[in-house]
Amino acid sequence: MFKKILIANRGEIALRVIRTCREMGIKTVAVYSTADAESLHVRFADEAVCIGPPPSNLSYLKISNIIAAAEITNADAIHPGYGFLSENAKFSRICQEHNIKFIGASPDMIDKMGDKASAKATMKAAGVPCVPGSDGLLESYEQTEKLAKEFGYPVMLKATAGGGGKGMRAVWKESELKKAWDSAKQEAAASFGNDGMYMEKLIEEPRHIEIQVVGDSFGKACHLSERDCSVQRRHQKLTEETPSPFMTDKLREDMGNAAVRAAEFIKYEGAGTVEFLVDKHRNFYFMEMNTRIQVEHPITEQVIDYDLIREQILVAAGIPISGKNYIPQMHSIECRINAEDPYNDFRPSPGKITTLHMPGGHGVRLDTHVYSGYTIPPNYDSMIAKLITTAQTREEAISKMRRALDEFVIEGIKTTIPFHRQLMDEKDYVEGNYTTKFMESFKMKDPA
Amino acid sequence: MFKKILIANRGEIALRVIRTCREMGIKTVAVYSTADAESLHVRFADEAVCIGPPPSNLSYLKISNIIAAAEITNADAIHPGYGFLSENAKFSRICQEHNIKFIGASPDMIDKMGDKASAKATMKAAGVPCVPGSDGLLESYEQTEKLAKEFGYPVMLKATAGGGGKGMRAVWKESELKKAWDSAKQEAAASFGNDGMYMEKLIEEPRHIEIQVVGDSFGKACHLSERDCSVQRRHQKLTEETPSPFMTDKLREDMGNAAVRAAEFIKYEGAGTVEFLVDKHRNFYFMEMNTRIQVEHPITEQVIDYDLIREQILVAAGIPISGKNYIPQMHSIECRINAEDPYNDFRPSPGKITTLHMPGGHGVRLDTHVYSGYTIPPNYDSMIAKLITTAQTREEAISKMRRALDEFVIEGIKTTIPFHRQLMDEKDYVEGNYTTKFMESFKMKDPA
Repeated sequence: MFKKILIANRGEIALRVIRTCREMGIKTVAVYSTADAESLHVRFADEAVCIGPPPSNLSYLKISNIIAAAEITNADAIHPGYGFLSENAKFSRICQEHNIKFIGASPDMIDKMGDKASAKATMKAAGVPCVPGSDGLLESYEQTEKLAKEFGYPVMLKATAGGGGKGMRAVWKESELKKAWDSAKQEAAASFGNDGMYMEKLIEEPRHIEIQVVGDSFGKACHLSERDCSVQRRHQKLTEETPSPFMTDKLREDMGNAAVRAAEFIKYEGAGTVEFLVDKHRNFYFMEMNTRIQVEHPITEQVIDYDLIREQILVAAGIPISGKNYIPQMHSIECRINAEDPYNDFRPSPGKITTLHMPGGHGVRLDTHVYSGYTIPPNYDSMIAKLITTAQTREEAISKMRRALDEFVIEGIKTTIPFHRQLMDEKDYVEGNYTTKFMESFKMKDPA
Repeated sequence: MFKKILIANRGEIALRVIRTCREMGIKTVAVYSTADAESLHVRFADEAVCIGPPPSNLSYLKISNIIAAAEITNADAIHPGYGFLSENAKFSRICQEHNIKFIGASPDMIDKMGDKASAKATMKAAGVPCVPGSDGLLESYEQTEKLAKEFGYPVMLKATAGGGGKGMRAVWKESELKKAWDSAKQEAAASFGNDGMYMEKLIEEPRHIEIQVVGDSFGKACHLSERDCSVQRRHQKLTEETPSPFMTDKLREDMGNAAVRAAEFIKYEGAGTVEFLVDKHRNFYFMEMNTRIQVEHPITEQVIDYDLIREQILVAAGIPISGKNYIPQMHSIECRINAEDPYNDFRPSPGKITTLHMPGGHGVRLDTHVYSGYTIPPNYDSMIAKLITTAQTREEAISKMRRALDEFVIEGIKTTIPFHRQLMDEKDYVEGNYTTKFMESFKMKDPA
């Protein structure tokens, strides 16, 4: 087992990893920028090394400084957390060259999954469904008609030079295709001076549902069921839950099998997430694979009753997994508490936390690196806490989230607590009736 | 279902009950003494009524004030928590007379289980093993010899007027009985002017292991396995865990069956706890039954994944239980954090909390009513928080407790955090090798 792990990250995920290392009896090294000197991850690590000032390219992204910190402190492994260097093939390679175990994917794996086209090709080869598309420019109307029939309607025509909806047409049946093709090409030519078109299957009422997988160094993988991350604003996840209210036993089995097939096909090592789009007919399509721990991993931990960071460390140390797939018996929800003003277009609200009261009790978990008196620096992402509730049913988990949000007091800055509190009462959310389009029509009510 | 529940208690358990009520959509009424006006249970309840000043007999024990508060606020049920009026038959009866549902045992049940002799007689009738004893004064040496043979050695002779170990003799075999009898009687006569003696079986290396039961109004009961509460100081529990490190499948089955038999025999309604002494040979003996929720109930909740307060409320509302016994798959430990100085004979240390940082993250639950800036009044018991960790194994739960205790910062008062931190490293505790005598030889090490 590793003797000392350097955590190449900050904030709640750095603290998260330090906690598990402590519990496993592994020493920890925190790295930090000058803006993070007062952060809890610095305080709770056994050692801490300053690696430069903000912005991140001078510190948390500066590979040479991080490797130097690992060498100075004799760390034998690096946990990259999420974001920053967690999916950086060069960093993974340099760790390898310096004989420091990178607790994440190999450089080749990151390369393979990091490039969209190569990831899609790999998944196709593994028999995982991908969104059908023309794979390049359409050559003729005849080819377009043939492809559309193959994909099945509806399809989406898109101008290759397009933007802002221009040169884009949703086509719901074959009889409408010719007219749409002509008008889209015309519009594209007029708008961009380029009438090149491509086509994809249109995903109706798309949901973002991802499957957590864990693979070991013996080629074995298992899945830990899904997380529904459809509540997103500009592709930023706001809240996640497991199981998905849209899930069926059959769909879970199919998606789970596809994800395990994908992981075993590429001999995936470690914790990873296969992200899918699921349409209203419960067809699912591969989007991308994240070769790292996800922000939303705690909801999976809550329902499987074990520690995914620990699992990452064990697998990285060459220990085999049990290989058992997990079918959820409990329900868990995560709300990302951001230092943002939900009444003002979610504008970032860094600054000093003057008062902090954290919720607790039965079924409540809180992962946070902030404390009363802590100043949130303006340099990094705005997430300051993850509030997680877990219960026997979805209804109970929502009730628990409402009361936990009601207890949560943060003063001195604006946070997304009022957004989540409203969301938990929103009819469509409560009924599990939401897609990735949900936030487009969401409006904050006036504060009471 | 109840519309409004009054919580006739204070501190963490009042908050605990309020949380579950909120989650169930039931309105809450807090009652408080003038010393508790700033307490969180007052802040988080929908309504709050001041019921008098400290000490408790002028407020939390003043039945007339509590009933008046319930009537003024139209509460249709009262949850008594633990301590105070939770096992007061008169209070239970007055609630009944006022048509307010008492969420606890019926007056008759409290009477039956509250009196030691009657509880023991009832348990004997239910076929639950009790500590064999002479049930009154011994009449002669011959009777004593006969009874001792019946109980089996070792036995304990005790002077009825005794105290401080005087007139008390442990007897390990028959050949020693006569000498012990003579000398104990002589000593008792000389010390107290009364040589009346009684005798009980001596429980070797006793462990306090209790079984959580839940019974419904249809006469059905189930058990939720055990809690080991052997780490006690002057009969005050300090830390509890489930499962017990001393437990075997066979013993759990036998104790569980005995507890369910007892609960069904008396048609027990609600959550209750059957406390046993277990000797080194794994014989178990009924001690007493607590007809209320216990302080240490969260460790059971953590391993069964559901809410015992909710279960109490459901059963009180006449909803049947599933009746499934629970066999633990996880391990959970609770440390009671008291405002006491472990370096100074656990002397109470009330006062103002100037700094508070609470641990969190994976597998950590914290139940507390205190906050930064809160002043702990000197009038009540000194428990200020319950820190609970849960993991797949006992070893992991202990590791998690160590790191959670390391993260826990409370300044302004003394607490038992250093005691628990030392305990978690103590060889005998780590090996699960402890009895109710454990604390007699425990010594705090000098602070580092």
